[in-house]
Amino acid sequence: MEKSALIKEIRSKGSYLCVGLDTDLTKIPHHLLKEKDPIFEFNKQIIDATEKYCVAYKPNTAFYEALGTKGWDALEKTLDYIPRNCFTIADAKRGDIGNTSGLYAKAFFETMNFDAVTVAPYMGQDSVVPFLCYPNKWVILLALTSNAGSNDFQEINLADGDKIYERVIKISSTWAGSEQMMYVVGATKAEMLLKIRELIPKHFLLVPGVGTQGGSLAEVSKYGLNDEVGLLVNSSRGIIYASSEQDFYKSAAIEASKIASEMKIYLDNCIN
Amino acid sequence: MEKSALIKEIRSKGSYLCVGLDTDLTKIPHHLLKEKDPIFEFNKQIIDATEKYCVAYKPNTAFYEALGTKGWDALEKTLDYIPRNCFTIADAKRGDIGNTSGLYAKAFFETMNFDAVTVAPYMGQDSVVPFLCYPNKWVILLALTSNAGSNDFQEINLADGDKIYERVIKISSTWAGSEQMMYVVGATKAEMLLKIRELIPKHFLLVPGVGTQGGSLAEVSKYGLNDEVGLLVNSSRGIIYASSEQDFYKSAAIEASKIASEMKIYLDNCIN
Repeated sequence: MEKSALIKEIRSKGSYLCVGLDTDLTKIPHHLLKEKDPIFEFNKQIIDATEKYCVAYKPNTAFYEALGTKGWDALEKTLDYIPRNCFTIADAKRGDIGNTSGLYAKAFFETMNFDAVTVAPYMGQDSVVPFLCYPNKWVILLALTSNAGSNDFQEINLADGDKIYERVIKISSTWAGSEQMMYVVGATKAEMLLKIRELIPKHFLLVPGVGTQGGSLAEVSKYGLNDEVGLLVNSSRGIIYASSEQDFYKSAAIEASKIASEMKIYLDNCIN
Repeated sequence: MEKSALIKEIRSKGSYLCVGLDTDLTKIPHHLLKEKDPIFEFNKQIIDATEKYCVAYKPNTAFYEALGTKGWDALEKTLDYIPRNCFTIADAKRGDIGNTSGLYAKAFFETMNFDAVTVAPYMGQDSVVPFLCYPNKWVILLALTSNAGSNDFQEINLADGDKIYERVIKISSTWAGSEQMMYVVGATKAEMLLKIRELIPKHFLLVPGVGTQGGSLAEVSKYGLNDEVGLLVNSSRGIIYASSEQDFYKSAAIEASKIASEMKIYLDNCIN
């Protein structure tokens, strides 16, 4: 999907919400377990209920891999089911030496047809570039993550004064422009968005950690929005597990619509 | 597999060779393409031919993922086929926030039954620890990789004088001992093994990059071997694609046996 199409979709829906499809057999409503493919059935009902309120879906591949080939099958079916006007992100955090990263790119961009894949930066340029060879496909690079362990390495000071995550952003933003590269920046570090926006004023940021992990949508939007929106904010558990009843999808729709309503206010204030 | 069992296997075979099963449909002998599952058939013949000369097999998951569910099926069958006295490594380079890394651990240690998985360090402690909850299962953490891009971040100097990869080793080696943690150190940086051995004298190192990527087995062994062997040296393409003829497995066996013979000399000199 082109950047312009994504921005158009966000403006049309008044939402920059990404719904995380972290679908776990132990957490989905019990009545779905009798279905032939409970994971896909759950995702289908979540997608039907939330597509009005969001512009992107982000299945985290770990949840599907944990089930083996059945899980991959459910992931492929889910991707095929997502409406094509929605931006699709394989949250896979891959990265390997050049020829091998090329195969991950093939897995997510050819064998499956995701718009974007999350990539880990540790192995450097040749581990990222193979994903950038696909027109209108995106790399979403881990910069500053939302978990406790992000302090262990990402925030360490380098000899020249940068922190590691800042250096990751500075170097990697020379590999591709804001038409093909986004960055993961955790919502639990909202105040750091100010500095990150100085480094990459035009790039989209994918922001996890709003909701269950404690991040504030207001803060993230205040520091993160730019004149081309520039934000996708993800919520997973707070939406998809809002209820475990038969009509769980209604609760999911309500939670997604609440976030979208708040986003509309920030978009109206920021852009118009 | 316990560390003592791995060492025993290495001493019994006189080899610390790991064969990388980077199996690619475009590179395997043409006659196998008529098989129902060419990837598994290739792996099976490679395993039969090389198991005498190696102690570990390391399928890189990218090669299987690129084929979708069929690829995962071939991976599962391959793992089941590997003799249980061999150490098995899922070269997956995973890592995510705590609960999600737990699902990757489930994928590779429960759904499949690998002995070890390679993990990327960028997201810190809570992205690694879930893999360490399984007794006799191993994390092989990326420290200093063999590719060109390893210079982009891994070798940057920190404010306190360490390089990033050294800090990764120092911090992560407090999370688990040498009974559950190994490190990836590229053979193309053999001279750096000396410094790494000072930091982690007892840990096993998984060393890719010998052969096609240009690393020297003699150098790696000189600096890397310790009194509990402490090395697994991987070769992938140099062995498995040694020939594309009908009897490709014979060439693979010859290449593996050559490496094993050289290893036996280093082991005899170092340990006895």
